Amino acid sequence: MKFEIQTTDTASSARAGTFTTAHGEVQTPIFMPVGTVASVKAVHQHELKEDIKAQIILGNTYHLYLRPGTEILEKAGGLHKFMNWDRPILTDSGGFQVYSLSDIRKVSEEGVRFQSHIDGSYHMFSPEYSMEIQRKIGADIIMAFDELTGIPATYREAKRAMHVTHRWLERCRTWLNENPPLYGYDQTLFPIVQGNSFEDLRVESAKYVADFGADGNAIGGLSVGEPEDVMYNIAGLVCEILPKDKPRYLMGVGTPWNILENIALGVDMFDCVMPTRNARNGMLFTWNGVMNMKNAKWKDDFSPLDESGTSYVDSAYSKAYVRHLFVAKEYLGKQIASIHNLAFYLDLVRVARQHIIAGDFNQWKEQTVPKLKQRL
Amino acid sequence: MKFEIQTTDTASSARAGTFTTAHGEVQTPIFMPVGTVASVKAVHQHELKEDIKAQIILGNTYHLYLRPGTEILEKAGGLHKFMNWDRPILTDSGGFQVYSLSDIRKVSEEGVRFQSHIDGSYHMFSPEYSMEIQRKIGADIIMAFDELTGIPATYREAKRAMHVTHRWLERCRTWLNENPPLYGYDQTLFPIVQGNSFEDLRVESAKYVADFGADGNAIGGLSVGEPEDVMYNIAGLVCEILPKDKPRYLMGVGTPWNILENIALGVDMFDCVMPTRNARNGMLFTWNGVMNMKNAKWKDDFSPLDESGTSYVDSAYSKAYVRHLFVAKEYLGKQIASIHNLAFYLDLVRVARQHIIAGDFNQWKEQTVPKLKQRL
Repeated sequence: MKFEIQTTDTASSARAGTFTTAHGEVQTPIFMPVGTVASVKAVHQHELKEDIKAQIILGNTYHLYLRPGTEILEKAGGLHKFMNWDRPILTDSGGFQVYSLSDIRKVSEEGVRFQSHIDGSYHMFSPEYSMEIQRKIGADIIMAFDELTGIPATYREAKRAMHVTHRWLERCRTWLNENPPLYGYDQTLFPIVQGNSFEDLRVESAKYVADFGADGNAIGGLSVGEPEDVMYNIAGLVCEILPKDKPRYLMGVGTPWNILENIALGVDMFDCVMPTRNARNGMLFTWNGVMNMKNAKWKDDFSPLDESGTSYVDSAYSKAYVRHLFVAKEYLGKQIASIHNLAFYLDLVRVARQHIIAGDFNQWKEQTVPKLKQRL
Repeated sequence: MKFEIQTTDTASSARAGTFTTAHGEVQTPIFMPVGTVASVKAVHQHELKEDIKAQIILGNTYHLYLRPGTEILEKAGGLHKFMNWDRPILTDSGGFQVYSLSDIRKVSEEGVRFQSHIDGSYHMFSPEYSMEIQRKIGADIIMAFDELTGIPATYREAKRAMHVTHRWLERCRTWLNENPPLYGYDQTLFPIVQGNSFEDLRVESAKYVADFGADGNAIGGLSVGEPEDVMYNIAGLVCEILPKDKPRYLMGVGTPWNILENIALGVDMFDCVMPTRNARNGMLFTWNGVMNMKNAKWKDDFSPLDESGTSYVDSAYSKAYVRHLFVAKEYLGKQIASIHNLAFYLDLVRVARQHIIAGDFNQWKEQTVPKLKQRL
């Protein structure tokens, strides 16, 4: 994977870059829509491509392993072909889902034993097995298998999990070196910085990951319940240590303002279920703030859904109509809101990139963040 | 409303025609997707237009009255503008829904008092009020307010309901004559033939409706649980009596083979929730038969969803992928299946029309019906 930085902001650590994968280029900073089980919920692939203008999407190894399963994905020739998506894909390692979704999980040096959230069946993920599954899924970027600790965690727990994550990282690399890709194109491994909210652990982990020498690096275990300023502090600290010439990916973040603040700290890649999950509950993000579409104030507002929006849904449907669809619990409401929010998130990072290149990113960000947080 | 017949089949009563409304032309025979509460479930308006090629859709007066309500629809300038659909719309009268959805309903000469299926609130529909609501909705074709009887019904009940329906029809016309359209274009009233499964009542009702002299006529109260041959018998009987130079609309029918058989009997217009409702349960209709997408047989069938399908979903997604979406309960499965089924229904009537014009409709129908009924 090749990464080139076009511009670095002078007033912040923001960068505008481009990375290249076997399935095409991605311009950073970028937001990756989450396609949990081989589908970005309620959104067609051609909508993702042509209307939302997604450049790369994310798949969840845990979910894909359970359904449709690696046998089907391998027979299909990988996830790209299975779901008919020819642009880049990134898969996580399953580490976060076994942490967040399994009722029962047991971590050992070997890996994590867990119960499926679907049928209660027992499974074991190890670094090697996570790599094997990710080879079969065939994403362009694959993530190291990590262990994370939630909020609150003791220093001792966080330190142990961080060291486990580092040892597992070596096992991921070893397995990948011995087992080439299955579909004739490269897969790039991103290691993950852990260490919870403890600064010294984050510094240690970031140095370890920096020395690992990967083509891209990730920050995991944030946005799991800690205050926003703690997230910003840790992300900034880690970005300072991670190599400047490699893309930095902050996993699972976040709100539109979280994204702008973290871009300023030097983050290049983001993913989050928020735009789609909140959309399905009627929450729309816009340049002028957040709208709850179930609110009665929209019931006779026949103006376009979002005059500043880039998606066709923003002009094709009115606020009153979308409000009605949510009140009547119609599928189309969730579909429209999902498209809108994803198109907005992609617009957000595209405009951020334009401002980085124009040289006024930080000033623009300071003006924009308060607007994004407004309640409409 | 203008109706022109291009061709009448020699071996059956099938006709190919065109009717013209203020929102454009419709080529018959036609199937009308059901947009219950101002949305054809899980389908975008532009998909209906550009991919499914729907020429006219149906709205349900009962549902639209409850949500969003006539006040909002009137403020929006009617349903077309509210939902952003600029082609023809037909609304039913609410008669069928108060019959099928309300726990409690009480029929009197005045009308029907019923409880909302949403919140249990009490409402009263009369012929006049149904017309008033339909004026506010603003569909191109509006339906007379009727009373129907289910299966089983006694002769006495069916006869009483039929006579009520006839008296209500006169009240509909009187009200419409005194209350012009609200949005500057004509609305055409279709009367409805009732009479349950009793041939003499159906003949009486068809004659009454024929004499009424409307620009189009409907057959109601079929496909409510009676055997298929009873439905065909009654439909054929009624079509013989209804004027040949006006479109005939068989309400709420049906399967693909029901549609072809009724076209042969002289029916021009159809609507049914089946293509969308069954789609959401994973049942797909094709030229080669019916597919249950939840079936394990599709799990590694990576061939296109439907090689004979006209929609983009038929080639963009594989059977294995759509099967996975249904197993994983993903919204996209319902969306894809809904688009497929509606596109198929529109293709079905379009091809039927081509065969009517080519002069080999009946022969083609005899060959096609057994294929449509196959289980794949």
